[in-house]
Amino acid sequence: MAPVGSKRGVLERLDAGEVVIGDGGFVFALEKRGYVKAGPWTPEAAAEHPEAVRQLHREFLRAGSNVMQTFTFYASDDKLENRGNKLTFTGQQINEAACDLAREVANEGDALVAGGVSQTPSYLSCKSEDEVKKIFKKQLDVFIKKNVDFLIAEYFEHVEEAEWAVQVLKATGKPVAATLCIGPEGDMHGVSPGECAVRLVKAGADIVGVNCHFDPMTCVKTVAMMKAGVEKAGLKAHYMTQPLAYHTPDCSCQGFIDLPEFPFALEPRILTRWEMQHYAREAYKAGIRYIGGCCGFEPYHIRAVAEELATERGILPEASEKHGMWGSGLEMHTKPWVRARARRDYWERLKPASGRPLCPSMSTPDASLNNINADQSAKVPSNTIH
Amino acid sequence: MAPVGSKRGVLERLDAGEVVIGDGGFVFALEKRGYVKAGPWTPEAAAEHPEAVRQLHREFLRAGSNVMQTFTFYASDDKLENRGNKLTFTGQQINEAACDLAREVANEGDALVAGGVSQTPSYLSCKSEDEVKKIFKKQLDVFIKKNVDFLIAEYFEHVEEAEWAVQVLKATGKPVAATLCIGPEGDMHGVSPGECAVRLVKAGADIVGVNCHFDPMTCVKTVAMMKAGVEKAGLKAHYMTQPLAYHTPDCSCQGFIDLPEFPFALEPRILTRWEMQHYAREAYKAGIRYIGGCCGFEPYHIRAVAEELATERGILPEASEKHGMWGSGLEMHTKPWVRARARRDYWERLKPASGRPLCPSMSTPDASLNNINADQSAKVPSNTIH
Amino acid sequence: MAPVGSKRGVLERLDAGEVVIGDGGFVFALEKRGYVKAGPWTPEAAAEHPEAVRQLHREFLRAGSNVMQTFTFYASDDKLENRGNKLTFTGQQINEAACDLAREVANEGDALVAGGVSQTPSYLSCKSEDEVKKIFKKQLDVFIKKNVDFLIAEYFEHVEEAEWAVQVLKATGKPVAATLCIGPEGDMHGVSPGECAVRLVKAGADIVGVNCHFDPMTCVKTVAMMKAGVEKAGLKAHYMTQPLAYHTPDCSCQGFIDLPEFPFALEPRILTRWEMQHYAREAYKAGIRYIGGCCGFEPYHIRAVAEELATERGILPEASEKHGMWGSGLEMHTKPWVRARARRDYWERLKPASGRPLCPSMSTPDASLNNINADQSAKVPSNTIH
Amino acid sequence: MAPVGSKRGVLERLDAGEVVIGDGGFVFALEKRGYVKAGPWTPEAAAEHPEAVRQLHREFLRAGSNVMQTFTFYASDDKLENRGNKLTFTGQQINEAACDLAREVANEGDALVAGGVSQTPSYLSCKSEDEVKKIFKKQLDVFIKKNVDFLIAEYFEHVEEAEWAVQVLKATGKPVAATLCIGPEGDMHGVSPGECAVRLVKAGADIVGVNCHFDPMTCVKTVAMMKAGVEKAGLKAHYMTQPLAYHTPDCSCQGFIDLPEFPFALEPRILTRWEMQHYAREAYKAGIRYIGGCCGFEPYHIRAVAEELATERGILPEASEKHGMWGSGLEMHTKPWVRARARRDYWERLKPASGRPLCPSMSTPDASLNNINADQSAKVPSNTIH
Repeated sequence: MAPVGSKRGVLERLDAGEVVIGDGGFVFALEKRGYVKAGPWTPEAAAEHPEAVRQLHREFLRAGSNVMQTFTFYASDDKLENRGNKLTFTGQQINEAACDLAREVANEGDALVAGGVSQTPSYLSCKSEDEVKKIFKKQLDVFIKKNVDFLIAEYFEHVEEAEWAVQVLKATGKPVAATLCIGPEGDMHGVSPGECAVRLVKAGADIVGVNCHFDPMTCVKTVAMMKAGVEKAGLKAHYMTQPLAYHTPDCSCQGFIDLPEFPFALEPRILTRWEMQHYAREAYKAGIRYIGGCCGFEPYHIRAVAEELATERGILPEASEKHGMWGSGLEMHTKPWVRARARRDYWERLKPASGRPLCPSMSTPDASLNNINADQSAKVPSNTIH
Repeated sequence: MAPVGSKRGVLERLDAGEVVIGDGGFVFALEKRGYVKAGPWTPEAAAEHPEAVRQLHREFLRAGSNVMQTFTFYASDDKLENRGNKLTFTGQQINEAACDLAREVANEGDALVAGGVSQTPSYLSCKSEDEVKKIFKKQLDVFIKKNVDFLIAEYFEHVEEAEWAVQVLKATGKPVAATLCIGPEGDMHGVSPGECAVRLVKAGADIVGVNCHFDPMTCVKTVAMMKAGVEKAGLKAHYMTQPLAYHTPDCSCQGFIDLPEFPFALEPRILTRWEMQHYAREAYKAGIRYIGGCCGFEPYHIRAVAEELATERGILPEASEKHGMWGSGLEMHTKPWVRARARRDYWERLKPASGRPLCPSMSTPDASLNNINADQSAKVPSNTIH
Repeated sequence: MAPVGSKRGVLERLDAGEVVIGDGGFVFALEKRGYVKAGPWTPEAAAEHPEAVRQLHREFLRAGSNVMQTFTFYASDDKLENRGNKLTFTGQQINEAACDLAREVANEGDALVAGGVSQTPSYLSCKSEDEVKKIFKKQLDVFIKKNVDFLIAEYFEHVEEAEWAVQVLKATGKPVAATLCIGPEGDMHGVSPGECAVRLVKAGADIVGVNCHFDPMTCVKTVAMMKAGVEKAGLKAHYMTQPLAYHTPDCSCQGFIDLPEFPFALEPRILTRWEMQHYAREAYKAGIRYIGGCCGFEPYHIRAVAEELATERGILPEASEKHGMWGSGLEMHTKPWVRARARRDYWERLKPASGRPLCPSMSTPDASLNNINADQSAKVPSNTIH
Repeated sequence: MAPVGSKRGVLERLDAGEVVIGDGGFVFALEKRGYVKAGPWTPEAAAEHPEAVRQLHREFLRAGSNVMQTFTFYASDDKLENRGNKLTFTGQQINEAACDLAREVANEGDALVAGGVSQTPSYLSCKSEDEVKKIFKKQLDVFIKKNVDFLIAEYFEHVEEAEWAVQVLKATGKPVAATLCIGPEGDMHGVSPGECAVRLVKAGADIVGVNCHFDPMTCVKTVAMMKAGVEKAGLKAHYMTQPLAYHTPDCSCQGFIDLPEFPFALEPRILTRWEMQHYAREAYKAGIRYIGGCCGFEPYHIRAVAEELATERGILPEASEKHGMWGSGLEMHTKPWVRARARRDYWERLKPASGRPLCPSMSTPDASLNNINADQSAKVPSNTIH
């Protein structure tokens, strides 16, 4: 096990053309395990149930993650209070515990620790740049104290707020990644992905991309638009994507939150491991090198990313000891038709049934429901498929 | 019954702001009735089985059609030969019979007769403008001899060829309509719907729009783009749409022919009468006043268009004697849950099941199949839904 | 064209082991053509628009039908009044016109004329056997006067009423067929298909089977149960099936009327021609020799039955001149991927998409709706699939 | 925390009419976490990665489980060798470690430890009753040494082998539960669920039921048939069900292993928490009091069972601190349409979309594939739905 000091940093790796694999979605995974409450989504489990958080970090590490994000989403004091939890622990305690857990597990393998900030209620309520930046600065204190390896400004719907966050983070001297939760239509003010990316790079981001809100292929498409924008502007950056693990072809521009199934009936949309391998390949082909996940990603999804890119990375993740590539673990099955599934072609072509004959394949996002009609094509214009 | 001479022409009606209802798809309807062969799709039935063609004209007239298109699709001599039929009748006989049938039934009500020309193999094999125009001129002879009321250049994939057709038709002095079989992505050379429409108007078309290849809402959207283009160019025209009666959200830019189900397994895609009423309303709202149908349209689909626009037109079609609006014919049913279906709200909101649990809701167009993958979102980017 | 007298009767054919092909559903087909009102479903078109009825008869004849059923469904005087139509023609006129049309077209080919009676409101309101039988007798008058070739008691939900009908029809000396509108669960009092069939045979039916209410494969299964019952009882009969042309895997025991889509949104359930060929083959394999259709059957569906059984019958129907077997008409298409569809294997394996991403594949029958739940498996127990 | 000795046993609880909540599927859950290999499915993680196994036990305990099953599935020496793993630990070590982990976590709350045996390759290769019983006896050694609270004979396809297992387990004097992995059609030799249950009770089982292979509602239905059989025979027993967490309406009689999606593409079939509440209620209503899960069950699924039965049990599980009943955690969401989801009615009625427009809702089990056809109804006879 290598000491922290000896690990190569995130930019060192990306500059060398290596793939950096992110981790998955702690909030959703821990909700299913019984440690996070859907709605508030706060991370008090870092202090309350450290063994559960540590275990999830460890599973992602074994699955191939090179980054342990501190489990500090929505952990600013105002959010913690705002969300109405009566907590045994202070925000400070929760944030510090989260940093310690991430570092502890990162030290068990080849992973870095990243601290993150996200969009603030303050921005939405139109507070000043100064006020918003103060919130980010406060969140940074614990990351600096705990000496995280790099910083991520993630889950921003407005590029302007993300720029402010990047400026604050950049001042620390640590590498900065910035991801918006937008799709190909751009941010909530209609700023295109390309322009968003240019602004983030100009603000100081070393790595730009998207996270959450949309499914993997939509995110790859969006980041490809960002990359094209940055290159057209004559700038340079690294690219990153941390999408949902859910199929969301029916999202409107605000993403999966508007789907009627959010957040308690998304199960039928969960990507299989094979669909994740496809995502990893397409992300790689699009020139994206920081490839991770967000809500819905379980350890086996990250392992699929690592397995797909094993040749490029020169290594299989530890958890692949417990996984036969392309279903090869079925080769010894007693039934010949089950053995016949032990091949790549089978899983790549399979169109898995939902087992739900009373359910449709797509929903109408809630925000669109004022426009009720029976026409299918209005929702999915034929000209959008190539 | 009014004599021909006293009927108001198509432009007279459209100029007055009236709705003109087209007819439906003869080729597909007569294929199901046993008089047209799928593949060649030639219209020899006009001479061979006039009673069958007359009956279909009459059903559309009863359903509300103001236009009887001569059943002369693919009836040029070269096509008839090319398609390999050994026919009892000459092309001349077939075309003349078709004109006579259309006129006979048009005289039974308030309908006009339209003669049509379509895209030629000659254009695709790169023959000269002169050669292509000669083909159109030859087709016109019978229409002029039989004195049709107006002319339609329809089913063109390339706007250039459509322009040539319009120029030829325009020389007759009769009103000219021109429809391309394109979607929102434009013609096969990527000319946008707006620019296509401008070029057709400049070539002399009085009415422009689309027909075939895409489903109703896609066609309405495409014609709306045409209208915007024409208006932006400071020009004037009337607008028309004659779409498929099939849902085709999964079409690529060449339309339903590339769908795996074409042409013998399109049944699950057939629009209901209520979906047709929605189409009629949306077309009307988009400023389209010539509203008809193409492949898949049966008489009850045209009746649905006429019923939706009954207030605007000031008249219900004759066939509505045999139809209760919004299911009112069920009001006397013995079962209360069937009676409960006798209302507009019920049918507008119903999402009809396919009865096919082993079938998906969308297909991958054949031309795209080199790119096999299991990812659903790649096919339907989330950013296309508003 | 053979004179009536020289035609071999229905029993002569069946006794010789020949296939007798029935016709399709007049009420539904003519509703779509604009001549029948859904709800009342009365057949006044026979007198009002004889050309439309004649044309449909002719299309079925061309498609291969050996039977022209008189278009007299719901044509008893009480039904005609009851249904609230103000008619120009008397019931007597309508019934006679229907018989004349059936005979006229039957004479154009190798078809017989069958007159039919159906279940009565009188039975449901618990009138006596005598009263119910009187109604059947009155309906018989016109069939006898017009000298139909054989009689059908069809669309009965209770075997007892069907027995009464058979007894009345049998007294005429003409061959009698009897079909219930039941599924494998039996009649509305729970009498099993096997026992129903035995009772009908004992009442005098020469041919027994089912019609309407369920999809083709369900009907084949039900008639197979009838056959097993008759054979177990040491009796003899011929077997017949005239199912819906709709997929109804989600029906409850009362059939498609309870489906939310009945009768105005059944389109996605319509069987393709290939699915009809499968039906014809399975019916034949089950020992059924009178094979026809009911609601939803269009002429091309009957042609598919005739084409599937062309070898057994030694003849292709006239309408096959306009149909390439297994899509062979596509062989000359310009696009290679469309040409590739010109083969049996392609259409047999295709699982056609619905084009309706917002729609489910199955519905919950209305009569079950007091038991609302999200569980899919409750509706389709896993043990029912073999 | 109560000492072991003071806990009430499983029969004590069931005899008192209490609900006993089982745990979920360790093999599948740990496969996704990276500790079990699909194919061999062996439980060496108990010794190799005890922290991962302990954590999963703890999550189920927090979710409401009253039983910690030792993670010893497929842990007999012959299986461990047979499956080709080169293991650092002996079977003895693995089994003992599994018992210790289960006991450790059981002691943290109100849970009992159960040790289990499953069907053997020896039975399938037709070894003698004596030989098969010896295998069960050997597996029992460690359970007795570690003093588990009761025993489960689970996952048997043949009732005969299960009877043998029950006889062996019964000899220990500990309470014995026995579950077959069958559906309503009965065991692999066609012995009905009712008869299977009678034989198991006669063999000495205190609790009988089913586990694995089928979805929750199918399992409830099967156990209801078992209960009816036992009661008809004048016997007494307790009833238990531990189904899949997957919708499997399309299973053939051998269960989900024959589905094309097994085991790597079952995601779209995963039950939501609300569907689990429905399962718990229906199981309770059917008189089943031992209610747990098998493959696919995650901690939040067990919590849903515990929440549905909170009134009956008089207690909410610990993990409900992190869960708002019926989505109440959404009540403070900023978007009104998300807040509107914070109610029972919403989640009970929602039919969740799959997000997979290219996928069907049902598959054809592999074992049936020699019979390829396009007919939907053949798969789901209409008579099976009530």
